[in-house]
Amino acid sequence: MRHLMSPLDLSVPELEKLLDLASDIEKNPKKYAHTCDDKRLATLFYEPSTRTRLSFEAAMMNLGGKVLGFSSADSSSAAKGETVADTIRVVSCYADICAMRHPKEGAPLVASMVSNIPVINAGDGGHQHPTQTLTDLLTIRSLKGRLDNITIGLCGDLKFGRTVHSLIEALVRYNNVKFVLISPEELRIPSYIREDVLKKNNIEFLEVERLEDAIPELDILYMTRVQKERFFNEEDYVRMKDFYILDKQKLSLAKDDMYILHPLPRVNEISVEVDSDPRAAYFKQAQYGVYVRMALILTLLEVELPC
Amino acid sequence: MRHLMSPLDLSVPELEKLLDLASDIEKNPKKYAHTCDDKRLATLFYEPSTRTRLSFEAAMMNLGGKVLGFSSADSSSAAKGETVADTIRVVSCYADICAMRHPKEGAPLVASMVSNIPVINAGDGGHQHPTQTLTDLLTIRSLKGRLDNITIGLCGDLKFGRTVHSLIEALVRYNNVKFVLISPEELRIPSYIREDVLKKNNIEFLEVERLEDAIPELDILYMTRVQKERFFNEEDYVRMKDFYILDKQKLSLAKDDMYILHPLPRVNEISVEVDSDPRAAYFKQAQYGVYVRMALILTLLEVELPC
Amino acid sequence: MRHLMSPLDLSVPELEKLLDLASDIEKNPKKYAHTCDDKRLATLFYEPSTRTRLSFEAAMMNLGGKVLGFSSADSSSAAKGETVADTIRVVSCYADICAMRHPKEGAPLVASMVSNIPVINAGDGGHQHPTQTLTDLLTIRSLKGRLDNITIGLCGDLKFGRTVHSLIEALVRYNNVKFVLISPEELRIPSYIREDVLKKNNIEFLEVERLEDAIPELDILYMTRVQKERFFNEEDYVRMKDFYILDKQKLSLAKDDMYILHPLPRVNEISVEVDSDPRAAYFKQAQYGVYVRMALILTLLEVELPC
Repeated sequence: MRHLMSPLDLSVPELEKLLDLASDIEKNPKKYAHTCDDKRLATLFYEPSTRTRLSFEAAMMNLGGKVLGFSSADSSSAAKGETVADTIRVVSCYADICAMRHPKEGAPLVASMVSNIPVINAGDGGHQHPTQTLTDLLTIRSLKGRLDNITIGLCGDLKFGRTVHSLIEALVRYNNVKFVLISPEELRIPSYIREDVLKKNNIEFLEVERLEDAIPELDILYMTRVQKERFFNEEDYVRMKDFYILDKQKLSLAKDDMYILHPLPRVNEISVEVDSDPRAAYFKQAQYGVYVRMALILTLLEVELPC
Repeated sequence: MRHLMSPLDLSVPELEKLLDLASDIEKNPKKYAHTCDDKRLATLFYEPSTRTRLSFEAAMMNLGGKVLGFSSADSSSAAKGETVADTIRVVSCYADICAMRHPKEGAPLVASMVSNIPVINAGDGGHQHPTQTLTDLLTIRSLKGRLDNITIGLCGDLKFGRTVHSLIEALVRYNNVKFVLISPEELRIPSYIREDVLKKNNIEFLEVERLEDAIPELDILYMTRVQKERFFNEEDYVRMKDFYILDKQKLSLAKDDMYILHPLPRVNEISVEVDSDPRAAYFKQAQYGVYVRMALILTLLEVELPC
Repeated sequence: MRHLMSPLDLSVPELEKLLDLASDIEKNPKKYAHTCDDKRLATLFYEPSTRTRLSFEAAMMNLGGKVLGFSSADSSSAAKGETVADTIRVVSCYADICAMRHPKEGAPLVASMVSNIPVINAGDGGHQHPTQTLTDLLTIRSLKGRLDNITIGLCGDLKFGRTVHSLIEALVRYNNVKFVLISPEELRIPSYIREDVLKKNNIEFLEVERLEDAIPELDILYMTRVQKERFFNEEDYVRMKDFYILDKQKLSLAKDDMYILHPLPRVNEISVEVDSDPRAAYFKQAQYGVYVRMALILTLLEVELPC
């Protein structure tokens, strides 16, 4: 039985197969509308995450399946001191597959080790959020037609941004991907990414402090939030925050076929005036998130696919 | 695409069509049992409202559809600072139609302006709660066979009662509806209703302070709660509260074919001894609420109806 | 219309029929997969209980039915002062059957008295939790092939353990069931069980203080939690707690065909090293809980069974 703990659990060929399936689902949703009739997904969310939970639920429903679960730890047996391992063994009696969100790193892994049903890590603390990465990859591949030969800008909080780290680790497996890392000094990518992922693999990358300096070269711009709390002092924050807000003016410097992604929720790092630009792809990305989760559920459940 | 923000969004002929559909659903529920197979309703409840949420969910399920969503803001992305506009754009990827409850007036309207799916206002602060009004209209029409030529008593807190204001605005569009407004002095209907809705349209109405004075004339008695906090002083409350409690004795003064409605939940303004009286229609009203929401979902989704 | 308030609501022949149905469901789940298509279960949980709620939801989904409800009182109309009687009358408009969990003893009974749909008590305070008892009975019968002629050990907190009391009351109706009651002095079974249930019916029973003294004789060992707070003093707790922890060593004294049950959640009263022992049946028990709830829903809804 397969689980999904990290985006790297899937080899590049496996990933291609998954993304192909997701693209076919996008084109022919009806073909898949009853592939999971009588299957049940458990959404075990030990911390709230509406977007991710609803995306999983929509994915399962689109396949004809049913959903049960909980949306916060208060209403779970965790409050009574039950271990995640025990919970998943019981939930195995109720569902065919499980998506687990947990504030503690590694909790889904612990669950997967004793589970009788496939477990999908739907986010474990600051650690992994693999279905976000799969969503990002499907979005890029769908919009650009490829995952190699691209220049991708990653902008904002690159130090703590889990989705950014995972995306870099996933993309270095493709050929000729160039990274432009756009962040304040305080929020640069951690050295393990710089040294062990980028340098060790001889990946071309650039670190810059201002979005407008970087934007003209990019094929993809991946925006993330810069939280005020992350700065050492108010002064730095005030001086720099506008560097990381994408507005029409900065966007005017970009290529016509550059696409803007964002894991959402957005606060103010993308100005709403950008929403109507055809390059704004962050809401489409949410739609790709459903397709890729549908493909993932079908794959982990080893459902025989319709031809 | 149509949304429903206020009961007045529907013209009288549109409303008739909707109520006709609801009545047909009541008579032939099986005919509609699969009209929304593979459709999904999102219930976005930024404040809890079990009754309204469950009524929407039951409505969608009765049509064969599926439901996803959240039942309080804690478990939503609102906590992360996401705007309602962004949330609805994402939810548009997950569902085909949405019912939104929000503590802030106008939030569903904001959502509807950017949404790719129909948005139903399921209550926005003290502002509107249009599906309650549709429920009330269907109940009256079903029980009395008409919406014109009726004398309706509205009893209780007429000042703050959102459902009362909406019902008045909806009913003045029909011929020969006479209103008897039964409330303490402090809780009389607001002047905009008295002047701009009733007087301006030459609608016959009466304001009285005691339920038993009004009840003999009524075709419909619409009860609402009188909350103690609304009174200026304890003395007034004690003196008057019994005026607004419907019991067997007061009901003995009413016509045999007068029906009692209440938006529920009830606290003590209708004595439980009244529940078994055939004129007590407030639980039937909850059933009509499901039928009218079914009709509304079918209408907004523009589902081709079975013949 | 039938409700289920207590396991004793079912006569022994009715119980046999229910367990037979549950066993047939276990063997032929597909046969029942659409017996409740278009039926809706309401899960009204006024206090959280993930396991019980999900078990009911899985049961209904396995029958093809749909589920709606709430998982804590915060998000229910109870917060607005509505009585349970009013709530169930409204919910009767939304669902075909209801499972209610409530912190107050008797609340489901009150609901059942005015309900238009079958009500299942899913736990009311310290009072009853009949579907747990049905689960226990199905598990024992499935594993041992019988409910009579068994020696069952009940271990842990026998004073406050609701499930233990119910199980004893249910089992005394069978022939030649012998009870071994294993608990610290402070947590012995209440005298109404000892006198009115056991002694009055001439049931053979033994009270012992140490699990290892009792274990060799047992056909079934029913473990429960011993909460530290239940002890009069720290000293007693430290001295005795290990008596009530089942580990491999104690298990080595047991028969090869003795099965271990536990209502779950477990904290540390069963060592995880026991989980892989074929006699550990507590996770299977969760699966039986789904089957018996499926059988119960079918029975109370009086669904015509497939042949």
